[in-house]
Formats: sequence, structure tokens, C-alpha cells
Amino acid sequence: MKDILENFAQGKISLEDALSSIKLLSCRAVGEIAKLDTHRADRIGIPEAILAEGKNKEDLVKIALAHLEETGSVIVTRISDEQFVAFEKIDLPEGTICDKNSIARTLVLRIGSKKSSMGKVGILAAGTADIPVSEEAKIVAEEMGCEVISEYDVGVAGIHRLFPSLEKISDVDAIVVAAGREGTLPAIVAGLVDVPVIGLPVSTGYGVGGSGLAALHSMLQSCSVLAVVNIDAGFVAGAYAAKIAIKRSYQQKQF
Amino acid sequence: MKDILENFAQGKISLEDALSSIKLLSCRAVGEIAKLDTHRADRIGIPEAILAEGKNKEDLVKIALAHLEETGSVIVTRISDEQFVAFEKIDLPEGTICDKNSIARTLVLRIGSKKSSMGKVGILAAGTADIPVSEEAKIVAEEMGCEVISEYDVGVAGIHRLFPSLEKISDVDAIVVAAGREGTLPAIVAGLVDVPVIGLPVSTGYGVGGSGLAALHSMLQSCSVLAVVNIDAGFVAGAYAAKIAIKRSYQQKQF
Amino acid sequence: MKDILENFAQGKISLEDALSSIKLLSCRAVGEIAKLDTHRADRIGIPEAILAEGKNKEDLVKIALAHLEETGSVIVTRISDEQFVAFEKIDLPEGTICDKNSIARTLVLRIGSKKSSMGKVGILAAGTADIPVSEEAKIVAEEMGCEVISEYDVGVAGIHRLFPSLEKISDVDAIVVAAGREGTLPAIVAGLVDVPVIGLPVSTGYGVGGSGLAALHSMLQSCSVLAVVNIDAGFVAGAYAAKIAIKRSYQQKQF
Amino acid sequence: MKDILENFAQGKISLEDALSSIKLLSCRAVGEIAKLDTHRADRIGIPEAILAEGKNKEDLVKIALAHLEETGSVIVTRISDEQFVAFEKIDLPEGTICDKNSIARTLVLRIGSKKSSMGKVGILAAGTADIPVSEEAKIVAEEMGCEVISEYDVGVAGIHRLFPSLEKISDVDAIVVAAGREGTLPAIVAGLVDVPVIGLPVSTGYGVGGSGLAALHSMLQSCSVLAVVNIDAGFVAGAYAAKIAIKRSYQQKQF
Amino acid sequence: MKDILENFAQGKISLEDALSSIKLLSCRAVGEIAKLDTHRADRIGIPEAILAEGKNKEDLVKIALAHLEETGSVIVTRISDEQFVAFEKIDLPEGTICDKNSIARTLVLRIGSKKSSMGKVGILAAGTADIPVSEEAKIVAEEMGCEVISEYDVGVAGIHRLFPSLEKISDVDAIVVAAGREGTLPAIVAGLVDVPVIGLPVSTGYGVGGSGLAALHSMLQSCSVLAVVNIDAGFVAGAYAAKIAIKRSYQQKQF
Amino acid sequence: MKDILENFAQGKISLEDALSSIKLLSCRAVGEIAKLDTHRADRIGIPEAILAEGKNKEDLVKIALAHLEETGSVIVTRISDEQFVAFEKIDLPEGTICDKNSIARTLVLRIGSKKSSMGKVGILAAGTADIPVSEEAKIVAEEMGCEVISEYDVGVAGIHRLFPSLEKISDVDAIVVAAGREGTLPAIVAGLVDVPVIGLPVSTGYGVGGSGLAALHSMLQSCSVLAVVNIDAGFVAGAYAAKIAIKRSYQQKQF
Amino acid sequence: MKDILENFAQGKISLEDALSSIKLLSCRAVGEIAKLDTHRADRIGIPEAILAEGKNKEDLVKIALAHLEETGSVIVTRISDEQFVAFEKIDLPEGTICDKNSIARTLVLRIGSKKSSMGKVGILAAGTADIPVSEEAKIVAEEMGCEVISEYDVGVAGIHRLFPSLEKISDVDAIVVAAGREGTLPAIVAGLVDVPVIGLPVSTGYGVGGSGLAALHSMLQSCSVLAVVNIDAGFVAGAYAAKIAIKRSYQQKQF
Amino acid sequence: MKDILENFAQGKISLEDALSSIKLLSCRAVGEIAKLDTHRADRIGIPEAILAEGKNKEDLVKIALAHLEETGSVIVTRISDEQFVAFEKIDLPEGTICDKNSIARTLVLRIGSKKSSMGKVGILAAGTADIPVSEEAKIVAEEMGCEVISEYDVGVAGIHRLFPSLEKISDVDAIVVAAGREGTLPAIVAGLVDVPVIGLPVSTGYGVGGSGLAALHSMLQSCSVLAVVNIDAGFVAGAYAAKIAIKRSYQQKQF
Repeated sequence: MKDILENFAQGKISLEDALSSIKLLSCRAVGEIAKLDTHRADRIGIPEAILAEGKNKEDLVKIALAHLEETGSVIVTRISDEQFVAFEKIDLPEGTICDKNSIARTLVLRIGSKKSSMGKVGILAAGTADIPVSEEAKIVAEEMGCEVISEYDVGVAGIHRLFPSLEKISDVDAIVVAAGREGTLPAIVAGLVDVPVIGLPVSTGYGVGGSGLAALHSMLQSCSVLAVVNIDAGFVAGAYAAKIAIKRSYQQKQF
Repeated sequence: MKDILENFAQGKISLEDALSSIKLLSCRAVGEIAKLDTHRADRIGIPEAILAEGKNKEDLVKIALAHLEETGSVIVTRISDEQFVAFEKIDLPEGTICDKNSIARTLVLRIGSKKSSMGKVGILAAGTADIPVSEEAKIVAEEMGCEVISEYDVGVAGIHRLFPSLEKISDVDAIVVAAGREGTLPAIVAGLVDVPVIGLPVSTGYGVGGSGLAALHSMLQSCSVLAVVNIDAGFVAGAYAAKIAIKRSYQQKQF
Repeated sequence: MKDILENFAQGKISLEDALSSIKLLSCRAVGEIAKLDTHRADRIGIPEAILAEGKNKEDLVKIALAHLEETGSVIVTRISDEQFVAFEKIDLPEGTICDKNSIARTLVLRIGSKKSSMGKVGILAAGTADIPVSEEAKIVAEEMGCEVISEYDVGVAGIHRLFPSLEKISDVDAIVVAAGREGTLPAIVAGLVDVPVIGLPVSTGYGVGGSGLAALHSMLQSCSVLAVVNIDAGFVAGAYAAKIAIKRSYQQKQF
Repeated sequence: MKDILENFAQGKISLEDALSSIKLLSCRAVGEIAKLDTHRADRIGIPEAILAEGKNKEDLVKIALAHLEETGSVIVTRISDEQFVAFEKIDLPEGTICDKNSIARTLVLRIGSKKSSMGKVGILAAGTADIPVSEEAKIVAEEMGCEVISEYDVGVAGIHRLFPSLEKISDVDAIVVAAGREGTLPAIVAGLVDVPVIGLPVSTGYGVGGSGLAALHSMLQSCSVLAVVNIDAGFVAGAYAAKIAIKRSYQQKQF
Repeated sequence: MKDILENFAQGKISLEDALSSIKLLSCRAVGEIAKLDTHRADRIGIPEAILAEGKNKEDLVKIALAHLEETGSVIVTRISDEQFVAFEKIDLPEGTICDKNSIARTLVLRIGSKKSSMGKVGILAAGTADIPVSEEAKIVAEEMGCEVISEYDVGVAGIHRLFPSLEKISDVDAIVVAAGREGTLPAIVAGLVDVPVIGLPVSTGYGVGGSGLAALHSMLQSCSVLAVVNIDAGFVAGAYAAKIAIKRSYQQKQF
Repeated sequence: MKDILENFAQGKISLEDALSSIKLLSCRAVGEIAKLDTHRADRIGIPEAILAEGKNKEDLVKIALAHLEETGSVIVTRISDEQFVAFEKIDLPEGTICDKNSIARTLVLRIGSKKSSMGKVGILAAGTADIPVSEEAKIVAEEMGCEVISEYDVGVAGIHRLFPSLEKISDVDAIVVAAGREGTLPAIVAGLVDVPVIGLPVSTGYGVGGSGLAALHSMLQSCSVLAVVNIDAGFVAGAYAAKIAIKRSYQQKQF
Repeated sequence: MKDILENFAQGKISLEDALSSIKLLSCRAVGEIAKLDTHRADRIGIPEAILAEGKNKEDLVKIALAHLEETGSVIVTRISDEQFVAFEKIDLPEGTICDKNSIARTLVLRIGSKKSSMGKVGILAAGTADIPVSEEAKIVAEEMGCEVISEYDVGVAGIHRLFPSLEKISDVDAIVVAAGREGTLPAIVAGLVDVPVIGLPVSTGYGVGGSGLAALHSMLQSCSVLAVVNIDAGFVAGAYAAKIAIKRSYQQKQF
Repeated sequence: MKDILENFAQGKISLEDALSSIKLLSCRAVGEIAKLDTHRADRIGIPEAILAEGKNKEDLVKIALAHLEETGSVIVTRISDEQFVAFEKIDLPEGTICDKNSIARTLVLRIGSKKSSMGKVGILAAGTADIPVSEEAKIVAEEMGCEVISEYDVGVAGIHRLFPSLEKISDVDAIVVAAGREGTLPAIVAGLVDVPVIGLPVSTGYGVGGSGLAALHSMLQSCSVLAVVNIDAGFVAGAYAAKIAIKRSYQQKQF
């Protein structure tokens, strides 16, 4: 790069040529960083995910296979029955494991065995309507190599249902709490445990504040120390919890 | 009225005249109903209230005195210090009691003694910021003849603070629960008691869902059986609770 | 608990052990309270309700039967025709009464006879579009043991239609008033009667302020003393009115 | 214009020249129409108005005088005390009448006498807080030559107060009804009279739906036949009512 | 009523009896007024309208026939093809005229001939998407006895298309201007004519401000003197224009 | 026009006649300008476009053919498969080229060959979901005579993917950048290039800020120098970019 | 508790008595749990915080001293200059350290020395306007015992400014990224590092999406794995980051 | 970089070392690109701008001087009188020109003479309230080396005022059109000219759609080909117009 700049300074090459050369050079440099970043990212392990919603079957299969080939695994989220059938009809690469979760509406394709457990994540769902996004969170956290302990239907309506559930997840590194309607459960849990809690608002409830809005706003307004993800963003919640858990587990192993 | 209609049918009076006569007649009729309704309302006792905010001193004093004269009492809400001084400077009718509550920013003017106790109302405030509107609710309920038991700063942050407070208000007929930010307290209380709970959202909190919006939406979305009033509507909450309590007390006395 | 704490203080047990023991103990304690709360709740009688919307047939039937077994009755709300058929196909426990209301889209399952009347609730609907949620309110209030008097299509368009309706419900303990579009009826009724009025906004109306928003906001802004529930929340409105009516009736019987 | 086009077609003048010429020609044509439109507008008489809010004193006075000179009258709306003083300090053209209305916060400057009465407009205000914008509506309607009959504080709280007021304005050509908070009065009036009613929402009320929003939405959702203007748009409401009334009056005189 | 009050004052009848009697009396009184109001309303002629959307076929037919019988005519708005077929299958009262407009999605049922022309209404639509609600406005204005002149597709895109259209409607008494997306046409028309203009926002446009919102807001913000109705409220716009036109025409005939 | 005015001044013709004459004259004048404006517009070349969405097949075909006949080309946007079939069934004018783009959901009808290239436009799409509106932008820019270079799936997730894409479009005159969800790509590109960038928000993303809202708001808040069009407004973005590019190209050719 | 229940079952004590006894018992039980929870919380160390905004000086000082006495430290946030002066005038308990940060508008009162470092937190601010809330986050994380490395003004405008900053915070356990306006920085950072990133939207920016809304929405819509807190919630962001860091550090020390 | 990677592959250096080295290297690379980008940016000439609002005087002066030193010029926007005084009190570098525009509330500091004219920009303002942001746009465009022709107060109220203004700016390369309230002017201008138009919504107007919202939404919904910037974003609008104009002018000079 120094050469280019010197040549440019001495007028040996035109500005346009200098720019082109440098741009090319730096794109390559950026490319190298990016590749290594990919390697690092690979260690922490957020898998490639594809939102199936709104994609036609052919494109979806094509993109999924490309990711599978490149990284060894891929998660398809919000997959429809019809889209799933399209995957059944094709020949997957040899050794590909194909896990469908019809509640979470996810499909995991993976070549080789799952990652070994690298941390523990807890997932709580306030009501039955909060289970699908909770399962989506679970799938991604597991795929990232975490052990996941989930407890569903522990909503505040009967706060006594909460305590035994908290007991069961007492040694996790991070907890995702999914809740719709008024969405109070995450704040209550965050007030009771000493691991980071991720609030996952769910698009339930009708009328004003429905579709998860009241839940999201409650979590953002909460006096508890709580971080949130977007409404129904089960993938992000699960991956964030795993990110906390894995790093922690990784450090424990290092020392 | 029959006469008018017959005369009109027989063409003795014009349509315009018939209409005028009937309108006059019915306005009088409506007037009579209204007067009696006023009498009934008087028994149940929602006092006249004036929102001081945005009124100039002179008008405020004039309107308040008119109400005082007509009904024997008046509550001025959201009164400023400057407006209060204006009341101190005038000669109130003899025997007028003048109660100022600087937290609730209310001024009560009353000729004669307070009404005797006709029911019990409980008022809970989640945090210190919720006290002013809670006090406004208290003033109006008391003025309507209710005994009011209030417990402040019982917020969910420490749910153990809630139980002793609930204990103290265990025999009330209705409970107002004021809460800002995420506004979860009313729903929790409504799940624990068997008297009607009125959710009173308070305009605290910054950012998204601030100014009481998240609180209002949470209460509306709550799975508990809960009714709500508008943000900061302490007057309405207090009067509504008293309406429940008084009727109940009145029935108890009847039988 | 004292023992645990003393042992912990004297170092006989580790912190972790002490915490586990105490947590277990207190969960049990909380459990006991909860059970009694359930008993008390049972006396006041808000029945278990399941929102059918968004649940698959199999899950819906399973949850409903579980509730039926546990508490002796259950209300399924917003049930579709297809979901209803699923209930017809199964063998309900002997003696189960199965009441479908196709306007309210509710299904009540009950073992044994209805509760005897414990209070009176009035339900007014402004227009024909407000009838379904009004019926939902009616079903729950009746299931809680109230006598319900309903008057539909009494909207303000012809205010003269209102008076005879008010006459008919003159001795109720609480009134639910359902109204969509501009939603003015609840405030008008609240200005004319001395029992608590519950405003129930209905999701009618198109354009700005449609889907019940203008109705909800009008009720919240009303100068009358009025409490509201969320848009289309017929269940909550009916249960709240019954809560007022039953307590009152219960007190009357006590003395 | 034909010449220009022909010359252009024959290549005698360039495209640029043709365009310039035609543009010039048509701007003149448009100018002539505009002037005549101004004349017609003058007959119907919507006076020039200046929103004082946000303008500095010097500019405000300068603009007002320019309008006064050009059209013989001008209305300054939302004028502050400080801005008014600025008008007192200058020498107005001889014969200028200068009317200040401190409630409406308007200042009218007029050379010569007011227009003779050309129609009747009724203005109703629901509460005392609705008076300022009602007065603004009144000023503009009067300035357009209408006789205005106003009745204030006739709100629905006591519906019996409405009937005598309607009686007094029984022969107007159009009615402006100003209302804040839940804003129901315009719809009720529109259901009772046979002249067009203009709903004027007022920015009162706190909490959700406050600042006139619930009022505006209620009016838009109303089942009555009602047209509305923006929140606090007293000027538009008054001018619109006068537009109806004057045309009508004008027709009556013609025939 | 005087008797009742006197008897009550002398203790001959109980308060409860007095209230019942007076209430009965006044309901009757109100009933009488209401009837006459109906008569007056009948002269100005806003016909009964039924929103078909969301009603089942059987109820719709039943309600429509009831209105037809009572008032001699009825307009069904937003009728679906399937609902229309339901009307074809029944036997309408003899002499009933049945007009379907499939663009406006309206069905008019009328016994006897149309009202004779009582005024003139102009209706302008900015684009083709604005035609359905414009037709709805036209139907109601015609049914109220107005002559309607409509000009469609005169949008601002080519402002030169506007002038010939304005020419054609130069002698109307009121103009409805329908416009979606940015909704500027009503304000432009209101600046060019001296009759009242009613802005009718139409639910077209995607993205931010779509579904008629930008149109409604533009009209409310307009510097022109303009009144508006809700988005897609063709019925209200047409009836309001007719209300202006008929009264005017009626006055012209009187003198 | 002068004649008319003089005649009017001398009373030879009535005001009404003068107005009619002048209006006629000026409409013609305006018509002439409009025609020429059309000619000019024709040179810059924004083609006629028809939004197919919500139109029935017959009307759509009719309108499209009318435009085709008048201007030689037309673009139908958001066309459905069913609507497209309707075009296949008719006989198009001889020599009509008929280009369907099923991703962009556009149909171009053109008589004669495409315009020769007059400028260069770059189009970048952040993700696969942004391709349809990008293609819509591309179609219109090409139809206006621009060469279009498009690079898709260059989103920020891997910023290293951006640089080679920018390289490829290094000599364009304007760049459209389509992005959904958080919509950051346009601002980043605008910070890196020296040609005008048009931000095109795309309606992807769920939860709060979904449907393109967060994307639009991000672009409006951006610190970069960036102009935006509405969500999914591919047509406008493409035409705007072409407007910049063509004028530039046109100027280059002139000198 | 068992005794109470048995006595109740055998009818020795009334239901009311049983309930009172059990409630008392369980409140105590809950109290014990709460105390221990407090102890645990104490280890993880989220300090008591008081929002000074909206509190009067006297109350603020009183509450702060109470907390200080009880827990040994307290953070006052959003303190005004005037409120700070009030603290200077009082005698603080001996040994109290009093740290004011006028940029963050915080005041820390602490008895004894700061906690020893238990983890590392990184804080990045996009622009100068984002520094105050970043400092608030820093204060709380430090007070919880974390070492904090902060880098300000590293905004995307010049992405090359970001890399050296990331370098400096390469070994932290969690990163808070504060950004206003379009708020893209957190997502970019989350894509480049393998520790959890907390997005902290800041209330900058005017126009649509201003006051932090576009920033919040962007972060929620981001494709990166990111969790967020409310707008300007510096305290929550700092405490959440510390919660992650401390637990991690604590685990490292354990093993 | 190749060396590093090879060493790493051969295990000569640790992963951590390799990463550090490469990161360092690439930051430098990115730095070089950035510098050159700065140079290119410099040629196109968007000057550094500082938003004065919310900054204290000392910081503002310091930042401004730093920019001035680095780039030779700086624009301070939304400067208050008090902040301006702070600049008057300091010693600016010799030869610094200091231009204050009190309408636009801008301060330009520049060392050396203004750039020579490189293109022409037109700026139109609909009303007087739109002048300040228009002036802000003008300042930045001039500072970037453009000749600016501005025409103010050309609003649609009198469309005939528009044509002479358009005439005057007939040879510009881009036009900024500022408009508040309903914001229709930009769309009208965009329909009449063949250069790109930038819509600049202004925060005027009260009630619904006020503060510039209706204006922004109208512009986004417009059928014309129009791009917009955020409300009151005069700086962005001016810089964007200049970006178009300069590039064009630059090309003209090249060939």
C-alpha cells in the first residue's frame, strides 16, 4: 500500500489507478479479517439461520444447502409444513442429520454430531402460548452446544408455580424468560436470580398493548436489571443466552 | 303534550309552534329528571371537582365558590401554590372548612362536617412516585364518606413488602392500586384478594412505554380480573372505589 | 426454618445447603398459601377460562378436561366451529353439562348444577355489533352465580331507547356497558346510575380510531366516574361485575 | 400561444425559447385567473389570518400591516400579550379598527365598518376549557359577516343543560361544537338538529387519548353525520360554518 | 309531574315510588320528543343505513326489512356478493325498488319513488381507487333527494384535468372530494370554490402514512378552509353534503 | 382575456359570463402548458405506471392499453399471476414488446425498441428479501433509458461483502440501496461514495419496528447525507435515481 | 403450618382465623427468603439506586441516607445541581465517600472502600451526545466492583475509528454500546466480538424516529445477536453488563 | 499478512498473537482507505457540521476549533445566541472568516475563501415558517461551493405565486422544497420540473399530523417522483442537493 501511495505522490500513477489499487488491496485485507472473524465466530458458534417465512420452496432449499455445505450446519426458522416437505424430497449430503421441531417451526440440518455441551441455559415460558418461541430459543442454544433446561407454563397467575421451576434451573449461566400479554414474568425472575435474564416478549394478547407490545414495554420499563430482545425473537434470545453461557463455560475450562 | 300534538294534528297550531312548545315542555321534563338525578347522585356522593390546571386564579376561585354554595362542598385538583394563595386571600362563607393536601395538590372546601363513614377503601402505591395520585384518590374517597386505609411503597421489587400491607387492608370493600413504569402491582393484588381492584397507572418512567403507557397497557393486558382508569386519574379511581364501597355499606345498613 | 438458619450460622451446613433447604421450605409455605388462596378464590368464583384462539384442537380439549377435572367447571372462549366439533367427538366425564353459545363463541363445561344466584349484574350493548362480547360477559357472570339482565341495541343514536333499558336493570349491583366506534354509552350510563359501571370497548369502526381505539380512549377520558377493561375483554368485564355483585350479595346474606 | 407553437414546429424558435415564451404566457394567464379567484374569494369573505405563534414581533406587525393594506382587514391568531403590545406602539392607518379578544387570543385589524350580517352561525362549547377556541371561531365568523350566537358550558355531564342552549340557536345555518376530553357533544348535537354540525376537538385531557386525540377520534367514529376540523382549529371551524351560512344567506337574498 | 312531586313532598308516596313514576313520565316525554325529532329528521332525510360487513346473511336481511317497513327505505353499505344473493332470494314487500351498486358495494331498498331533487351535490375523486367510496357518497346523497354530479379521476398528477371538472360542478351547493395517498385534492379544491368542501380520505397507499392516514392528516393540516370525515366514510361525506344542499334548497323554496 | 376583462369592467357582460369565459380560456391555457409539460416530461422519461394491486383484471388491461397507446409504453407494478394471464389472452397492438419480471412483479408493455442508454444507475440490496423491490427499481430505471448495475445480498452482516460490490458500481451516477429490518446499509454506502444515494426501506422484519419502519426511521435519522423514499417504493427509488442519472448524462452529451 | 391446617380441618379454628395465622406465618417465611435473597443479591452487588428526577430535595436526601445506612452504599441518578447542593449541606455519616459525576449526573455515597475488581466491562459510545448515559453505566458497573474500560466517540461515521477502540477492550466480559439517532453501532460491534453486547439507545435525534426511537427499533430489528435496554437506561445497561462480568469472574475464582 | 497467516499455520505464533497482528495490520489498512476516502469526500465537499443544540459552550467551541483546524471549515447548526457569544469571545485562527446567519441559526467558520461555484441549487419554501430550515439548507449548499437561488413564501395557497419562482430557478441542478403542515409543495414542484426534487418537511402545524408529520407522510405517499429527508433536516437536504449539483458540474467541466 505504501508503494501505491508513493507512486501516486510522485505522479507515476493516476489518482483513479491509485484508488483502484488501494481499494482492491484493502478489500482483500478486510476479506482476511473477515475470514478470521468467521473463524472466531465459529468458535463461539452462532449457527447460520434462515427465516423461511416469505421464501419460496426452491430458494429456501438452495440457500439452506449452501449454508450447510459451507459451515456444516444450518437452522431454518418459521418453516411451514409445505416448505418442510420440500426438504424431505431432496437428497441431503451423506451424513446429514435433519431435525424438525414442529412446535418451534424449526428445521436443523447438520453434518456430523452435535457440539458437546459448553454451558447451561435455562428457558422459562409464562404460558402455553409462549412455548413455540421458547422452543425456537432452545433449538438454537442447543445447536450452539449448550445444555438447555426448560420449564413451561410457570406464569405469575399462580406465583407458587414459579419457585419449583426456578429450583430446577438453579445452576444455569443465563435464563431466557418468554412472556406475552402484560409480560411481567421476566422482571420477577430477574429480581430473584443472580444470572443474567433475557426478556423475550411474545406476540399474544388482543386489544390495546396486544401483539406483544405491552410485554415489550413492561420489560423495558422494569425496575429489575433485565435486557430484552424483540417480540417473538426466539432465535436471538436463545443465541444471546448461549453466548453468555459458552464464554463462561469456555473460561472455566481454560483455567 | 297530548294537547299540543292534537292541536298540531288539527292544524290549530303550526309545526314550528308545536315543536317549540313540545321542546320547551320536554326540556322542563328533562330538567325535573335531572334535578332528581342530582338528588340521587347526592346520596351516593360524588363531589363536584374542578381541575385547577390551566385556569386563571380569578376564574378558579369564582367557580369553586359557586359549587360550594350549591352543593356544600367542592374539591379543587392539581392546584398550584399560587392558586392556593388566591383562596387564602378571599373570605370564605362562614363555617367553611378548607383542607389543603400539598402532596395530592388538592384543596377541599366544605361547609359543615364531613360525611360519616359509609364504607372502606384500600389504597396501595407501588413506589414513592405513585403517592401524589394515590393521595388524590384518598381525598375524594374520604370526602365521599369512606374510611380510607392507605399503604405506600409496597412495590413488587420486594414482593415480601406486599403481604403485610395486604394484611392491613384485609376488610376493605374495594382497592385502588397505583403503579407507574411497568405497572404490575395491580394485577398481582387482583390475583390475591376477593374485592374489586382498580388499576391506577401513574405517569412515571422514561423511554419507550414511559409516561404511564406501559403501566396502562400492562393493566389492560393482565390475565387478572382488573378494571382500570386513565393515567394519573386519581380522582376517578378514588371515586369509583368509593362508589363500590358506599353502595355496599348502604346495603348492609338497609338490611 | 429457624433450625436451618442457626445451623448455617454455626457453620454446620454450607450456604448452598441452607439456601436449598430454605427455598424448599418456603416454596412449600408459598404452596400452602396458594392452595388456600385457591380455596378463597373458589368462593368468590372466577372460573377457569381458556382462550381457544390459536390453540390446536387436541391441546385445547386436553387443557379443558384437565381444568374441568380439577375445578368442576371451565369456560372456553373464542372457540371456533371446528374446535367445538372436537369437543362433541370426545366422551366427557359423566354428568358434565356442555353449554355452547355461538354468538359469544363460548363453551362452558360444568359438572353438577350451576351456582345459585348470588348477585345481579346488568349488561347493556350499544349496538348489534356489541352483542358477542356482551354475551361473553354474560356467560362468565352467570357461571359465577349471578343473575344477569341484559339489554342490547340501546345506543345513543336514539337516546330515548336508553331509558326503558335502564329501568329494567334498576336493581343490579354493577353494570357492564359495551360500546364500539366512539364508545360514549358507558359514560352516559355512569352519569345516570349509582352503581359502578364497567366500560367495555368493542373492536368496531374503521378508519382512524377504529378497532375499538376511539371507544377505549373516550371511556378513559370521560368526565364520568367509570372504570374500563381492554377492547373486547368481555370475560374480564363480566367477571369484574360479578366480583362486585357477589361480594355485595354475600355481605347482605351475612348480616 | 398558437403562434409560439407554430414557430417552434417550423424551427423558427428554439425549444428553450418556445418553452420560456409559453411559460411566461401561461403564468400571466394563471395570474389573471388567480386575481379573479381572489375577487370571488373576496365576496365569500374568508379574511386573511396570521398565526402569531412563533413569529417575532417585528415580522408579525409588518406582515399584518401588509395584509391590512391589501385586503382591508386581517386577523392575527394566537397572539401573545407581548406581541399585542407591539401593535399598540405603532401608528395604524387612519380609520383602522383594532379589536383584541384576550380569551380567543386574537387581534382583528379592519379599515371601515364590519360587514353586514349575511347568515347565522351557532357555536356551542362543552366546557369552560373549550371557550378560547370557540371564541376564535366566533371572531372569524363575525368578521366574515355572520351573526354568531354562542352558548358555552353546555357539556353532556348534565345533558339537561343542552336543550335550552339548542333552543337559543334554533335558527342558525350551521353549528360549531367544541369539545375536549372524550368529545361526545358534537355527535349528540348532530343527532338532534337538521343543520350541518362542525366538530371542533379541543386539546384538553391528560393520559391516553389526551390533548384532544380522544375527542377527534370520537368525532371521526361517530355514527352521527358530522364533519370535523383539526384539534384546536377554531379559525377553520368558524370560517367553514360561515362559508355555509353566507352562501345560504346569499341565496336567500338573490331570490 | 307536579302532582308526583307534591305528593312526594307531602310524604304521600315514597321516594322510590316518586322516582319510578317520574322516570316513567319522563321516558314517555323523551319518547314524544324523540318521535318528533324523527319526523323532523325525516324531512331532512338521512336514510337508515346498515353496515353489512361482519353481519351474517340472515340478520342482515331481517334488520334491513325492519328498517324498510318502518321508514320506507334503507341503504345497506359494504355488502358482499354473497349477502346480496340473500336479498335476491327473499320476497320483498310489494312495490319495493331494489338498487344494487356493485362498485360502491351498496344496496338500496325503497318503497315508492325517489325523493324529488332538493339540492345539488358535487363529488370529485382524485384517482380510480377513490371511486368506490365516492359512489357510496353519491348513493346516499341521491337517496336524500339531491342531484349529484360526479367527476372521477381528476387527481392533481395532472392539475389541468381538474379545471374542466370544476366547471361541470359549478352550481352545486357542496362538494365531496375523495382522495387517498397524500390526499391533496380537497385542499386545492377548497381554495378554488366558494361552496363548502368535505374532504373524504381514502384508504389507499402503502408504507408509512398508508391506508389513508397521510390523506386524513394532510386534510386536517390544510391551510384551506376544509372539513373532513373519517377514512373511507363515504356514507357520512355524502349525507353531510346533502344536509348542506337540502337545507339550502329548502330555504330557496320557502322564500 | 383582456377583452373579457374590459367588457366586464364596462358592464357589457355579467360577472358570471366573464368568469365562465375566463375560466374556459385559462383551462385551455393550462391545457397547453400541461401538454408541453408532458412533452418535457417525456424527454426525461418517467414512464406511466399502474399499480395493479386492488384493480380487477378488465379495468387493469383497459387502463394499460390506453396508456400504451398514448405514450408508447407502460409499466404495470405489483401484478398478480392471475392479472398477468389476462394480458396474455388479449391481442396487444402490433409490435408491442411484453416483458414480465416475476420477481419484481412488473409487466412492461412497449411499442418499439427500448430507449438508448442515457446514464448509469447502481442498485444494491442488503439481503435476499430486498430483491423484489430492487428489481422493481431496476425495471423502471432501465425503461427510462439507464444502464443498471445491480448487486444483491451485500448486507452489513458481512461488511467485507460490500466492498467488491461497491467496486463494480464505481462509475454510476446515483445508487439505490434497498434494506429492511434495521436498514443500515444505505447510510454506510452514503458515507463511502460521492454520488447521491437513495435509501429504499423494505417491509421486512417482525415485532417492534417491523414492516420496514425501523429501516425508514434509521435512514431518516442517519448522520450520512441520504434521501429516502417510502417503504417498498421501488418504482419511486428507481425513477428518482434515473432522473439524476439522465439529466447528468444529458448534460454530458450537450457539452 | 401443618397444625393450623389440621385445626382448621377439625373445626377447632374458624376459616378466618386459619387464614390469618397462615398468612402471618407465610409472610414471615417469605420475609426470611427475602432477607436471604437480599444477602445473595448483595454478593452479586446491584447497588440501590434512586432516580432524583421529580423528587424534592428533602425527600431525596432522606431516602438516600436510609439506603446508605441499610446497605452501605447508594447511587443517586439524574441529580440536578440544586439537589446536589442539598447533599453538600448535610452531615454525612463518618467515613462516607461522596462521588459526584456531573456528566453522568450521578452521586455515589459509600461507606468504606470500593469493592475489589471482579470482572471487566467495556463501554463504547457512538458520539459525544452518548457520553452522559455511558458514564451512568460506567458508574454503576464500577460500583458493583467491575473494572470498566470506556471508549467514546467511536461512531460509524468513520468506521476506522472503531477498530482501535475494540482493540483496547479486547478482554472484557461484556460490552455496553450506547448510540442515538439511527443507533447502528451496537449491531456492528455485536457482529465483531464474541462477548455479549448490550445495546443502549440514547434519546438523541429530532424528527421522525427521534428521541432514541429509531435507535431502539434498529437494535431490536438487528440481524446481530444483541440484547437491549430502554432508551437512556444507562443504569440498567451498566448493571446488566456487570452481572455478566461478575458471575464470570466469580466462577473463574471458584475453580 | 500472508506471513502472519503462514506463521500461524505453522504454529510459530499463537492464535492470539496472529489475531492481534492481523487486526493491527488491517486497522492500518482500513485507516489508509479511510484517509483516502476523506480525500475524496473532500473533493465532493460535505463540510463538517456540529449540532450545537444540547452542547455546553466550552465543548462546542473546542470541537468547532478542532474541525476548523483539521479541514479548514466547519458549520455549527442550531446555535443559540448564548453559544454564539462564546465564539465572539475567543481568538479565532488568523484569517478565519466567521459567518453567522441568525435566521438559519448557523455559524460558519472558514479559513481562506469560499469554494468557487460548482453547480446550482434551487431552494423553495412554502411559507414564512419554512424559511429557517431553508436557510440552513442554503448555507451548507453554498459552503459546498454551489450557487444557491432561493425563493420563499411560494406556497400552494396561491398556486400562481409558484410559477414565477419556478421560472427564476429554471436552470438549477437540484431543488430543495421545504414545506410544513400538509406539505404538498414538493410533490407539485416534482411534477413540474425535470431535475431531482428533495422534499424537506418542516415541523409546523398543530393538532393531529402536526410537528411536520403530515408533511413527511404526504411527501412519502406522493405520486410524484420525490425523495425526502427527515423533518427539519435542512443540513441534509442542502448537502444532498449540492451532492447532485456538484457531481454534475464536475462532469461538465471534465468534458
